[in-house]
Amino acid sequence: MSVLALGTVAFDALETPFGKTDKIVGGAATYISLSASYFVNPVKLVSVIGEDFDFDMLEKMKSKGIQQEGLQIKKGEKSFFWKGKYHHDLNTRDTLVTELNVLENFKPEVPESYQDCDFVMLGNLEPGVQESVIKQFKKRPKLIVMDTMNFWMDIALDQLKKTISQVDVLTINDEEARQLSGEYNLPSAAGKIMDLGVKTLIIKKGEHGALLFGDNRMFFAPALPLEMVKDPTGAGDTFAGGFIGHLAKTGDISFDNMKKAVVAGSAMASFCVEEFGTENLLNLSQEKIDNRIAEFTALVRH
Amino acid sequence: MSVLALGTVAFDALETPFGKTDKIVGGAATYISLSASYFVNPVKLVSVIGEDFDFDMLEKMKSKGIQQEGLQIKKGEKSFFWKGKYHHDLNTRDTLVTELNVLENFKPEVPESYQDCDFVMLGNLEPGVQESVIKQFKKRPKLIVMDTMNFWMDIALDQLKKTISQVDVLTINDEEARQLSGEYNLPSAAGKIMDLGVKTLIIKKGEHGALLFGDNRMFFAPALPLEMVKDPTGAGDTFAGGFIGHLAKTGDISFDNMKKAVVAGSAMASFCVEEFGTENLLNLSQEKIDNRIAEFTALVRH
Repeated sequence: MSVLALGTVAFDALETPFGKTDKIVGGAATYISLSASYFVNPVKLVSVIGEDFDFDMLEKMKSKGIQQEGLQIKKGEKSFFWKGKYHHDLNTRDTLVTELNVLENFKPEVPESYQDCDFVMLGNLEPGVQESVIKQFKKRPKLIVMDTMNFWMDIALDQLKKTISQVDVLTINDEEARQLSGEYNLPSAAGKIMDLGVKTLIIKKGEHGALLFGDNRMFFAPALPLEMVKDPTGAGDTFAGGFIGHLAKTGDISFDNMKKAVVAGSAMASFCVEEFGTENLLNLSQEKIDNRIAEFTALVRH
Repeated sequence: MSVLALGTVAFDALETPFGKTDKIVGGAATYISLSASYFVNPVKLVSVIGEDFDFDMLEKMKSKGIQQEGLQIKKGEKSFFWKGKYHHDLNTRDTLVTELNVLENFKPEVPESYQDCDFVMLGNLEPGVQESVIKQFKKRPKLIVMDTMNFWMDIALDQLKKTISQVDVLTINDEEARQLSGEYNLPSAAGKIMDLGVKTLIIKKGEHGALLFGDNRMFFAPALPLEMVKDPTGAGDTFAGGFIGHLAKTGDISFDNMKKAVVAGSAMASFCVEEFGTENLLNLSQEKIDNRIAEFTALVRH
């Protein structure tokens, strides 16, 4: 099975209590595709970059089975850039710079060679842009997963709800779940969000783990308490990549297998945050991943 | 095996977003002993009250196997009273009234009939008072568990460290673990706290579950995501009561059994927060508890 990954491929400049970086490669689709590539091949990228991008990185991604026919390169334009600074607790951050650049008029195109993607991960983007990708499929994919953020709840709520109603799985964080539902209590929030027409919901709680709701059941996977968390950037996208990667690898979208996919995603996210940017995600092995997943399983076994 | 429960037996007046109460019975030892009483009998109380106390409640506690020879009743004095108001998220609260009353000069006495207690739960009190209970044992109990709070870190840190070094298990919440260790990261905080001489540490994260550290291992039990949380008062003490209750019932203090004890404690705490005060804890059945523990196990099974 192959995975389509939609989202930004971009530059980030990051500062956390543990260090800072100049412009490094980031972006939701970068994290999603790198993470998924450890589970399934090929991963087919849909995104947009400018001429200033780091083309060495694209080669590294190709070598991991990440296909790029759907990656638009805009001549004379610059890649999306985000600069942010995390606070002491790593849970909150200030945006210092956002330059939309190529993202301003991004119209994703799904190449003919991507029509065989059974598993589609719609990384965070304007929900109308996410919907446009769904519409380009001649045959509905087996599973469409969507990530979003509070920004779209503020400025594009109707479109957001419209896109949510067309996907199978929605991933959002706890604060966003509260905002979208108007409910503080997370099980209550989950109920209201699923009334929007999405069968499965994942509420990401960062260092506090992730909740999976669906099939009238609930599952919880903790985050692994790590000795060192250097940079949370991309953790949610890396989670999503591991989640859909596991599902695509196994071809099984039952609730029970989604539990395992949440654990796989959590394991991938735990690698992501241990180093800045994509550093750890470029250098994993199957053995490391298997061992980390086993740590997650052991953490709650009793 | 029998359990000794030290702590306050007191009045609370509570306000949460879901209601408010007049003076109702609360106090750490009340919650601890009620919770433990569902696992093991007898539970032997060490505390102090005034003449104003609710003696009907004492009878109810007696009927659950909670012995009261170590409960001092001070003539002409009033019981400890705390009045507090919880904020919208139930994680933070304001203290509106604290009347120490009988607690001001409390000198706990361990009756001769309590010397057979193998399991001792030292609920939150001034750490010198907690130590005085340990010292009254002629033979060291099999397991001593201690709870504390940030207040003692502020005003009695040396005595706190001294008492910690004499117990087997310390339970504190995440913010307190950070304050006590000077480490934000919880696994790092755990390491520093265990250097104080305590073999096993439980870090309580409220709605985010509990971490157990010991035997060079780590275990995590989530909290059950509940549709309704009315009042978090006493949740930590109820957790502690279920934890030590399970250990005393089974007589097994291995790390693997402590995992099960953390789940039992979490299950008991989940009942506690569903209603105000001790209401739920007075009316549980073995079947309800078994079913709830099974829910906790199912929540993380994958």
